[in-house]
Amino acid sequence: MPGLGEVTRGRVLFGGDYNPEQWPEEIWHEDVRLMREAGVTTVTVGVFSWARLEPHPGAREFGWLDRLMDLLHHNGVGVALATPTSAPPPWMGRLHPETLPRDEDGHIEWWGGRQHFSHSSAVYRRHAAAITEDLAARYAAHPALTLWHINNEYCTFDHGDEAAAAFRRWLRERYGTLDALNTAWGTAFWGQVHDSWDGILPPRRAHYLKNPAQLLDFRRFTSDMLLECYTAERDIVRRHTPHIPVTTNFMPLWTGQDGWAWAEQEDIVSVDLYPDPRDPLAAQHGALVQDLTRSQARGPWMLMEQAAGAVSWRGVNHPKPAGLNRLWSFQAVARGADAVCYFQWRQSRQGAEKFHSGMVGHAGERGRTFQEVTRIGAELAALGPEVAGSEVTAEVAVLHDWHSWWAGTQDGRPSREVDHPALLHAWHRALWESRLTTAFAHPEHDLSGYRLVVAPAAYLLTDAAIENLLAYVRDGGTLVSGFLCGVVDEDDRVRPGGMDARLRALFGIETLHEWWPLEAGESVVCEGPHGGFRGTLWSEELRTRPEAVAARYRGGELDGLPAVSRQGRAWYLSTLPEPEALRELLAGIAAEAGVRPVLEGLPDGVEAVRRGKLLFVLHHGREPVTVAVPGTHRELLTGETVRDSLTLGRYGVAVLRS
Amino acid sequence: MPGLGEVTRGRVLFGGDYNPEQWPEEIWHEDVRLMREAGVTTVTVGVFSWARLEPHPGAREFGWLDRLMDLLHHNGVGVALATPTSAPPPWMGRLHPETLPRDEDGHIEWWGGRQHFSHSSAVYRRHAAAITEDLAARYAAHPALTLWHINNEYCTFDHGDEAAAAFRRWLRERYGTLDALNTAWGTAFWGQVHDSWDGILPPRRAHYLKNPAQLLDFRRFTSDMLLECYTAERDIVRRHTPHIPVTTNFMPLWTGQDGWAWAEQEDIVSVDLYPDPRDPLAAQHGALVQDLTRSQARGPWMLMEQAAGAVSWRGVNHPKPAGLNRLWSFQAVARGADAVCYFQWRQSRQGAEKFHSGMVGHAGERGRTFQEVTRIGAELAALGPEVAGSEVTAEVAVLHDWHSWWAGTQDGRPSREVDHPALLHAWHRALWESRLTTAFAHPEHDLSGYRLVVAPAAYLLTDAAIENLLAYVRDGGTLVSGFLCGVVDEDDRVRPGGMDARLRALFGIETLHEWWPLEAGESVVCEGPHGGFRGTLWSEELRTRPEAVAARYRGGELDGLPAVSRQGRAWYLSTLPEPEALRELLAGIAAEAGVRPVLEGLPDGVEAVRRGKLLFVLHHGREPVTVAVPGTHRELLTGETVRDSLTLGRYGVAVLRS
Amino acid sequence: MPGLGEVTRGRVLFGGDYNPEQWPEEIWHEDVRLMREAGVTTVTVGVFSWARLEPHPGAREFGWLDRLMDLLHHNGVGVALATPTSAPPPWMGRLHPETLPRDEDGHIEWWGGRQHFSHSSAVYRRHAAAITEDLAARYAAHPALTLWHINNEYCTFDHGDEAAAAFRRWLRERYGTLDALNTAWGTAFWGQVHDSWDGILPPRRAHYLKNPAQLLDFRRFTSDMLLECYTAERDIVRRHTPHIPVTTNFMPLWTGQDGWAWAEQEDIVSVDLYPDPRDPLAAQHGALVQDLTRSQARGPWMLMEQAAGAVSWRGVNHPKPAGLNRLWSFQAVARGADAVCYFQWRQSRQGAEKFHSGMVGHAGERGRTFQEVTRIGAELAALGPEVAGSEVTAEVAVLHDWHSWWAGTQDGRPSREVDHPALLHAWHRALWESRLTTAFAHPEHDLSGYRLVVAPAAYLLTDAAIENLLAYVRDGGTLVSGFLCGVVDEDDRVRPGGMDARLRALFGIETLHEWWPLEAGESVVCEGPHGGFRGTLWSEELRTRPEAVAARYRGGELDGLPAVSRQGRAWYLSTLPEPEALRELLAGIAAEAGVRPVLEGLPDGVEAVRRGKLLFVLHHGREPVTVAVPGTHRELLTGETVRDSLTLGRYGVAVLRS
Repeated sequence: MPGLGEVTRGRVLFGGDYNPEQWPEEIWHEDVRLMREAGVTTVTVGVFSWARLEPHPGAREFGWLDRLMDLLHHNGVGVALATPTSAPPPWMGRLHPETLPRDEDGHIEWWGGRQHFSHSSAVYRRHAAAITEDLAARYAAHPALTLWHINNEYCTFDHGDEAAAAFRRWLRERYGTLDALNTAWGTAFWGQVHDSWDGILPPRRAHYLKNPAQLLDFRRFTSDMLLECYTAERDIVRRHTPHIPVTTNFMPLWTGQDGWAWAEQEDIVSVDLYPDPRDPLAAQHGALVQDLTRSQARGPWMLMEQAAGAVSWRGVNHPKPAGLNRLWSFQAVARGADAVCYFQWRQSRQGAEKFHSGMVGHAGERGRTFQEVTRIGAELAALGPEVAGSEVTAEVAVLHDWHSWWAGTQDGRPSREVDHPALLHAWHRALWESRLTTAFAHPEHDLSGYRLVVAPAAYLLTDAAIENLLAYVRDGGTLVSGFLCGVVDEDDRVRPGGMDARLRALFGIETLHEWWPLEAGESVVCEGPHGGFRGTLWSEELRTRPEAVAARYRGGELDGLPAVSRQGRAWYLSTLPEPEALRELLAGIAAEAGVRPVLEGLPDGVEAVRRGKLLFVLHHGREPVTVAVPGTHRELLTGETVRDSLTLGRYGVAVLRS
Repeated sequence: MPGLGEVTRGRVLFGGDYNPEQWPEEIWHEDVRLMREAGVTTVTVGVFSWARLEPHPGAREFGWLDRLMDLLHHNGVGVALATPTSAPPPWMGRLHPETLPRDEDGHIEWWGGRQHFSHSSAVYRRHAAAITEDLAARYAAHPALTLWHINNEYCTFDHGDEAAAAFRRWLRERYGTLDALNTAWGTAFWGQVHDSWDGILPPRRAHYLKNPAQLLDFRRFTSDMLLECYTAERDIVRRHTPHIPVTTNFMPLWTGQDGWAWAEQEDIVSVDLYPDPRDPLAAQHGALVQDLTRSQARGPWMLMEQAAGAVSWRGVNHPKPAGLNRLWSFQAVARGADAVCYFQWRQSRQGAEKFHSGMVGHAGERGRTFQEVTRIGAELAALGPEVAGSEVTAEVAVLHDWHSWWAGTQDGRPSREVDHPALLHAWHRALWESRLTTAFAHPEHDLSGYRLVVAPAAYLLTDAAIENLLAYVRDGGTLVSGFLCGVVDEDDRVRPGGMDARLRALFGIETLHEWWPLEAGESVVCEGPHGGFRGTLWSEELRTRPEAVAARYRGGELDGLPAVSRQGRAWYLSTLPEPEALRELLAGIAAEAGVRPVLEGLPDGVEAVRRGKLLFVLHHGREPVTVAVPGTHRELLTGETVRDSLTLGRYGVAVLRS
Repeated sequence: MPGLGEVTRGRVLFGGDYNPEQWPEEIWHEDVRLMREAGVTTVTVGVFSWARLEPHPGAREFGWLDRLMDLLHHNGVGVALATPTSAPPPWMGRLHPETLPRDEDGHIEWWGGRQHFSHSSAVYRRHAAAITEDLAARYAAHPALTLWHINNEYCTFDHGDEAAAAFRRWLRERYGTLDALNTAWGTAFWGQVHDSWDGILPPRRAHYLKNPAQLLDFRRFTSDMLLECYTAERDIVRRHTPHIPVTTNFMPLWTGQDGWAWAEQEDIVSVDLYPDPRDPLAAQHGALVQDLTRSQARGPWMLMEQAAGAVSWRGVNHPKPAGLNRLWSFQAVARGADAVCYFQWRQSRQGAEKFHSGMVGHAGERGRTFQEVTRIGAELAALGPEVAGSEVTAEVAVLHDWHSWWAGTQDGRPSREVDHPALLHAWHRALWESRLTTAFAHPEHDLSGYRLVVAPAAYLLTDAAIENLLAYVRDGGTLVSGFLCGVVDEDDRVRPGGMDARLRALFGIETLHEWWPLEAGESVVCEGPHGGFRGTLWSEELRTRPEAVAARYRGGELDGLPAVSRQGRAWYLSTLPEPEALRELLAGIAAEAGVRPVLEGLPDGVEAVRRGKLLFVLHHGREPVTVAVPGTHRELLTGETVRDSLTLGRYGVAVLRS
């Protein structure tokens, strides 16, 4: 299979979504002039072009796209050609209303925006295949074609009748018999035993709580249906162009797709990333998404979309202050990106996203935003040969599984304050602030390459996952788990004792009496061998083996009971330590496991990552800082020599080669 | 009619909901072993078994239930056998979609959870009657059968077409003619005069406010329809087993049912009670529900459901700290319960409530929860003969009428801050903290047995109720009313003057100029003969007879106007005094009326209740306290002799016999 | 055309909505007795009488109305006769369900309340025309008939199928061709190009954001459809009574109607005004609505509805303290009202608004409310000849355009904190507190009569509007604009540069790099020639001509950049100064432009307005104040002579003639 390396050929790709159908053709020539000026290598074309390509059912209008592809090619710009299937033309819904999705209340999601298609609709899929087929056939040999971009941000749900039928087929395949389904779903509870496949529905509005296993399977089904849509189109374009890699752009930590399963079906993993410039933890959020995406890709990946300035979907949309676009672009490269792209090239004047920034904003080429884009393009062009294709290695892994998220996020759980992504963020932050480069892993992945594995939110663990973790510790790995670990099996069935017995044995836990979730803002005092700290969000009434107590609760109802247990290299945290405490705890355990930070003694807000032979130093603050970088290096952006120490200005970036 | 005494036969029942269909039969034997260990006398079986009993329409599968009933009987456990009609099997909705309820927007409430039946559906009712008939016939003579438990927590609404037709029939019966309905509903307002019965609908979504009398009648209709469902099943089982009492479990202060009317149709009144362990007023909330339930039962009652630990439907679900389950169980007995039961016996591993605690929790028999359950069972077994069947007497009554709640809770009222149950809680709390044992009564009940009657929220009063209150005071009773008393008649029609003229005369009020509701958090200063206090929630611009002024507003727009009026034994409070002030006011009025607290000089957080010949002393705090109990008593739980004083530890309970 | 003068004939009208169908006829006689006592000149009759007039389809029952009209006439009370078309009888929806509107999710808005009609329904319109025709024919010659009141508070939306067809017709008329529509709507974005008129829908529920131009046009369409309903009925009554003026009552600053376009279709402009007695800015809110209504009317106007006491639709509904009803009534007269009317005459005992106050409240004629009403009636009767028909002149205009509001209020904009009416309020407040009498104007109106024009929220400006503003400044006018000025054209299409180039030139702006909206509660420091101030809500990264800088940002990312630009008589504020700063800034600019306050040196909370030859002084506080009024005047309410100074008590009013 072709991969990202076939596209980059020693470069870091630079560009963005380009929607020329919004502009008169005379602007296209202005566009390519500015693309050359900005060092654009690649643009994504056609994401929302279905109505333009097929204005009436069965019509084909490729002329404008022919001219555009030629123009881009003649100007040295490659094309990530998109199948336009995320936004069917209005005629689709008008002539085939059954292609429109329905929400859980039965409301139709009408056309006029985007993603108004049912993933289960045979009619939609047939039309999507046809336009994909013709697009692929027409441009298979076009020299501008660089990459296939399938659909866009797959993310829809459907509770309608065709989806219900598809759900039944999917369940029949999963379970074989109704008995097996009834067992897996625990329909004996509340007497919801199914006597017919026809009685099974998507989780539509109900009087009260729904079946949690049905909800979980509906998530799995939805991810699989969308993946079927993706692979159907992928297979068509592959047939025409086996040498051209295929991707679809993920949303970061998006709940709707099983990201591990999806990544396996892609030649290139790409992601859209929009941190809030005002979020004080935006840099860590970016790092997390980048680490996750790189782990999904098992190597270099594409930043398919970011914003050159403000987005338009938050309550208040802040622009990027001078330098931030550049800093975050280099952060992506440092963490493995071989492509830095934007939505979108030229800011729209009309439509729902006209206030979303562009590489060329409303202010045009004289605007600060475009000036900064031009600088980034030039720097990436220079840096490309040094970095493209190289790897980021990590000795620490964070476990994450979408299925566990889906199962653990339902109503009727012990605490609605517990949020899967918030836990991932809290634990990743502790590692990031400790300057430990981390990967993400599925609990069933081979973990033998990591010295330290942390499990912030492993509520659902399959038997295979549990055996994998046991083997990992047995073979010398260090495992640190947060609370609610191995509570349920793959059917969301609570394991006897409220936590898998093998895991309890691993952590030295004898009895888990009760969960004691905490209110928002509440905390409990804990005391460990190195002093006290506060736990938040959760606590537990636990009996452990006496020698396994690593910290105890102090005061309150749990006074004297174990807060943290440790047995050998297996740790269990029955609360969420406050950020500083979690950082110290994990840094200490990491050190014990032989993991060293990328750089020692870094000032606050400075991030360091090694990629291949390069050391990236990124300064997320506004006041100049001096950073110790022992040895002699060449700073690649300035070409200067750096000896032992380096000063970074506001949002400064250094790329050092020793 | 048979009653609770036929079931208890000198015991306090102990047990819980038992759902064996969720477990393999080998677990059943484990269950009965543990039931014996815990002193379980009674379990509720079959609440959600419809799909198991009738897996296909018309099928009957009783074999498993036969075996279970035999097993329980052989182990000395009686059965409260439930009709399974609160959760129809999936085939019901699939084959008869018209049985599914619709909300006010027309959304269907689908199967897959529970209570997905329209109370008005003829098809549902026919199927419910058939399974009830067969269940009753089969187990009429079974020796384990102790009690019938009809359906579960009736609570649904339906705005669909069959409900609309039933609503019309109900209205035709209530009003006879359209003219009468138009008059009662005041349809002249906004020109909504009905010219045809066919034009009358449930209160579905409208552009703006709906007709308040229609809303009120829809509440009445809903309560009556659900009651018809109940009585239909009750009559069937009664026909088979005239000697076996019948109940259905209420939710505490649930808005949907007219609790007074329902209680009259039950042989035993039972309730489900789930205070929040974190609520500082949880003990008072429990007392209130227990007092109300006892008043509905006019004697001993059943605590049908409580939680051994945490529930799972709050945002954050706290477990019960050690001792709390026992304390609250004894509180129920003290206030008249002859049964202490739980939802549920064994905590589920699957389904929507798998995180709701059980008597046997996920931690199993070694868990703290089960250990505590076992202690409670043993203590109740010992105490049973001393207490079962005995009465709690009260000299104080709190007026409460569901119809008044329904009428007073609509949009378009003077203040959305005014909340019927919150007012009941505030006034009951003042009495509870004064150690006055209280009953609840409907405003039309015979009140002659009470020295003091309080009316916290008597917004709607019928003429009969008003005459009843006048007679009560005339005959020597003391009446204290909160604001918004007698504002409307039974059609929610405002009485001239904004308050019934007879009541104004009773309280010495001449003119009610304006209501001055207060914002949340706002208060007004009042000054009475014994000092100042703060009023909250409400105030009024009132003119009273000069000699009727018992307290005045100070400052603000109402400066100098009457805040509390008193004429003889009739008091009117035009504001809600802060808790301490209301407590002092009511305690003083009670003393004047000759009502004494159960015990004098009790420390904070200690509750005392007399039941029959026993004095229960309950300590709701965690630090030990000493309580004066003049005289010599035998403490029944320890068997020790108590002279004049008693020390109670954390969550301590004492049961004294003099 | 007849106008308000034909009705007032030297009086200030006084009265309210009168709904006699809610009362037995014996009460009518009581009503007219009290009306005479209160000085009522005019009542509005029939607003909700359709079901009474046409109880069955096609029936006509005018007898009761005949008797009522006669009774009123014989008691000297004129009638504003309403078409009853805002509340169709229940039979309309029952027999013609297609007349019921649907919300964007497809939910039906059922009958039983009011306004349950689709503005696009041919059946509704036909029935509305028929009843209007017959009503007009019957009462054309009745001597009580004074005024036509069409419908009531037009405000509905409809997303159903008949509305969809009407929307298509409206769009076809606006755009002629699909190409033109696709261009105006920018459907190239997200590939929503319409290939058929049949594919165009109202903006129903979608997966994500909708097309902003579609949303804007749907607002325009809705306003136009409702206006068609109005003009259809107006034309019918005009045909019968060309000499009787016609109005419909607006809701203040209601978003759903283009108030400028509507006012042109009325003989009399009338408004409903319900400030919250607890709102500390209620007086300014009243002034704003009154200024806007007077500007729409281009002269005297009617206060069609206010409350004598509390309303019933807020969370907590406060009554009017003694004196406030009178103060606000005179404020309306001061600002141009020739009619002071209420909803409603007699407070209802039933229905959804039974807690909305009346001129005769629940407390009846002895209630404080009615006593105050009687005083107001008498004073207005005395004052009428002095004031009726006279004009209020203003040298300052505030620009306001509903289309700009509609366009600027959609999702996907830079900041959801930016709120069109809040901006109007903030700027009007600055002028009101500076005692500058202001008018409102549309950006395309002739502005030559104003010395100062302010544009708080001119997000959308047509080319004509821009040329109008340029000409206004060119001809000597002073223009002060808030941020987001001229951002889009009439299709909500962003103008190149993010702000119209002509406007940038006018204000001396060279490049608008980025918008920097602020979070709620956030502020930025600015520094002008006269000191520092804080800006809120918004800031901008702007380059202006150096000499155009009137204030600069200090600190933060925008340090040193222009905050306020000024070029000649054109000012641009890129932030919203805090209230005091905005007041000082505008007062200074006004002074420079030659605009003087009505009175100098007024104490806080005292308002002064000149109307005709009279000077109204209104005291919105509760403590007595002394006001300097140079010269000798006659105070018309007391008849006393005032020399140079005047003392006003709580909520005091003085009307001075020099």
